[in-house]
Amino acid sequence: MQRQIGRSTWRFEEVRILSSAVVVGPKEGQGPLAEHFDVIHEDPYVGQETWEKAERKLFEEAVDLAIEKSGLTNSQIDLMIAGDLLNQIISASFTARYTQIPYLGVYGACSTSMESLALAASLIEGGFANYILSGCSSHNSTAERQYRYPTEYGGQKPPYAQWTVTGAGAAVIGKGLVGPKVTYSTIGKVIDMGIKDPFDMGSAMAPAAVYTIAEHFKDTGRTPIDYDLIVTGDLAGVGYPLAKQMLFEQGFDMSDVYNDCGLMIYSPDQNVFAGGSGCASSASVTYGYIMNQMKNKKLNKVLVVATGALLSPISYQQGESIPCIAHAVAIENEED
Amino acid sequence: MQRQIGRSTWRFEEVRILSSAVVVGPKEGQGPLAEHFDVIHEDPYVGQETWEKAERKLFEEAVDLAIEKSGLTNSQIDLMIAGDLLNQIISASFTARYTQIPYLGVYGACSTSMESLALAASLIEGGFANYILSGCSSHNSTAERQYRYPTEYGGQKPPYAQWTVTGAGAAVIGKGLVGPKVTYSTIGKVIDMGIKDPFDMGSAMAPAAVYTIAEHFKDTGRTPIDYDLIVTGDLAGVGYPLAKQMLFEQGFDMSDVYNDCGLMIYSPDQNVFAGGSGCASSASVTYGYIMNQMKNKKLNKVLVVATGALLSPISYQQGESIPCIAHAVAIENEED
Repeated sequence: MQRQIGRSTWRFEEVRILSSAVVVGPKEGQGPLAEHFDVIHEDPYVGQETWEKAERKLFEEAVDLAIEKSGLTNSQIDLMIAGDLLNQIISASFTARYTQIPYLGVYGACSTSMESLALAASLIEGGFANYILSGCSSHNSTAERQYRYPTEYGGQKPPYAQWTVTGAGAAVIGKGLVGPKVTYSTIGKVIDMGIKDPFDMGSAMAPAAVYTIAEHFKDTGRTPIDYDLIVTGDLAGVGYPLAKQMLFEQGFDMSDVYNDCGLMIYSPDQNVFAGGSGCASSASVTYGYIMNQMKNKKLNKVLVVATGALLSPISYQQGESIPCIAHAVAIENEED
Repeated sequence: MQRQIGRSTWRFEEVRILSSAVVVGPKEGQGPLAEHFDVIHEDPYVGQETWEKAERKLFEEAVDLAIEKSGLTNSQIDLMIAGDLLNQIISASFTARYTQIPYLGVYGACSTSMESLALAASLIEGGFANYILSGCSSHNSTAERQYRYPTEYGGQKPPYAQWTVTGAGAAVIGKGLVGPKVTYSTIGKVIDMGIKDPFDMGSAMAPAAVYTIAEHFKDTGRTPIDYDLIVTGDLAGVGYPLAKQMLFEQGFDMSDVYNDCGLMIYSPDQNVFAGGSGCASSASVTYGYIMNQMKNKKLNKVLVVATGALLSPISYQQGESIPCIAHAVAIENEED
């Protein structure tokens, strides 16, 4: 079987998501997808002294739960591929210290969720590992402190800003007999349309999502109606209609099939500006809601397109625009 | 052929380093390996306005040169796997914007050099890409500013501190007919012996290097004398003898075969404290000196063990010790 299709779409025959888990904070637990999360913490500090340690705790809990559900032990898992939004991806690296599983750190901003899943799938399919733990995390207060201002400052935001999801999602990937299959991934390239406003992530990232979705369709010969659901990671209220319109102009009618994790995870009355963001946005929706819907056969073919803004505060301060990227992964139930 | 050996050693049959390039700053150009670098910049700003833009420029030049030497064009390269030490790996991501090659960002601190090479090799061997660009960068002044103090402050350092290498290394990996083969990689796990002094990276990272080297020997059945050269990335004057002694105590006599890139890239009279560090330490030595020596058959079997300290200034400020990791890649000439 040809594993590489086009330039950067990978095809998998034997890879499955064997188990997954999602651990979130209080705001996510008040949202419409609450029932799909394994653990909801009422305390945004998760009993820790700092926001950063809280984020790590969420990640450790998600990882423990995903491994437990897989029926495996840490020592049976060959590799952990993970990342997060913090400087030096400390949430992932300290979680890797906790798991003691061989570890590769990845960074794709909010696209990290699908970057880690795509790499995990390729290494499983390629025969380099039997089981891989894939995951990512984000925390509203760590992201605010690092990318903008500490939340304690009470800084004001424009309505097109987004709310970073507090949560962690993890999955165990392997060649088992049950669980939805990972069938394709399409690796994106950096698209930068010159947007410089770091609050306007949705507009900045929409073209990157469009590029990757169009590449995916071109490489696989699929069209929107081949999927029950196509979700972007965190384009939210501003980026989502932009992406939809841009895809329509390229001949892809996404009506009825397209949604955005950043719009799904909160309800409009939750004061989240344009919607959710952060790697935990796509990870929580994918490893929680989508996995459950696939188990119940309410969804059978899903394309998750995680979107990432690859800026840093320093690149912004130095006058740079925002380079963006998106990586897509197709997840499918086997036909009966 | 079994591609996974033990838990996290990967075996490759068909992967080669088709070309490589190294671009460095002035201090590296005054060191003993100067003749092995493609470009030596006398200006540490590389004609740019900021240190960060200077680092990116080095990276772009290294990438351009590596691709040019491969005889390929950017559009023929399927994927770029890269990272660096800066927050949000902006050097790599902005270089990916420049190359317009589909991109996966990775982070393993100074182990990023071999993390990107190991992943590239696995994707080539697995049939997911024909050609992959792998690389990383570091810059003394960007690293000082981000991890410690801006160089302009003139802060004092203890003698066991290290000097971050200013440079970038890149390689094109594929299944061609010429060039040294990538035969094995061993992915490390996080080892943290409780060291908290962020200047003492050598001591912190030595046990991670020892773990990965011992795993590599165990998985492959090889011993030190199977290699002409085993190099760690940046243990330097403090970590290098520690690692050597620890390996000796585990039954591996590394005499005659073991060196450290951080000790090789500068001469002792260059005022670099204990020696070099940064992802460009192992990348410059590997993609410059080692590639040349392999071309001349002065070296034929080399194991590069890139070492990384996965801390951040925030994890240090919050009282955490330093989690470390090392990834090994074996590079070999085909026997005549």
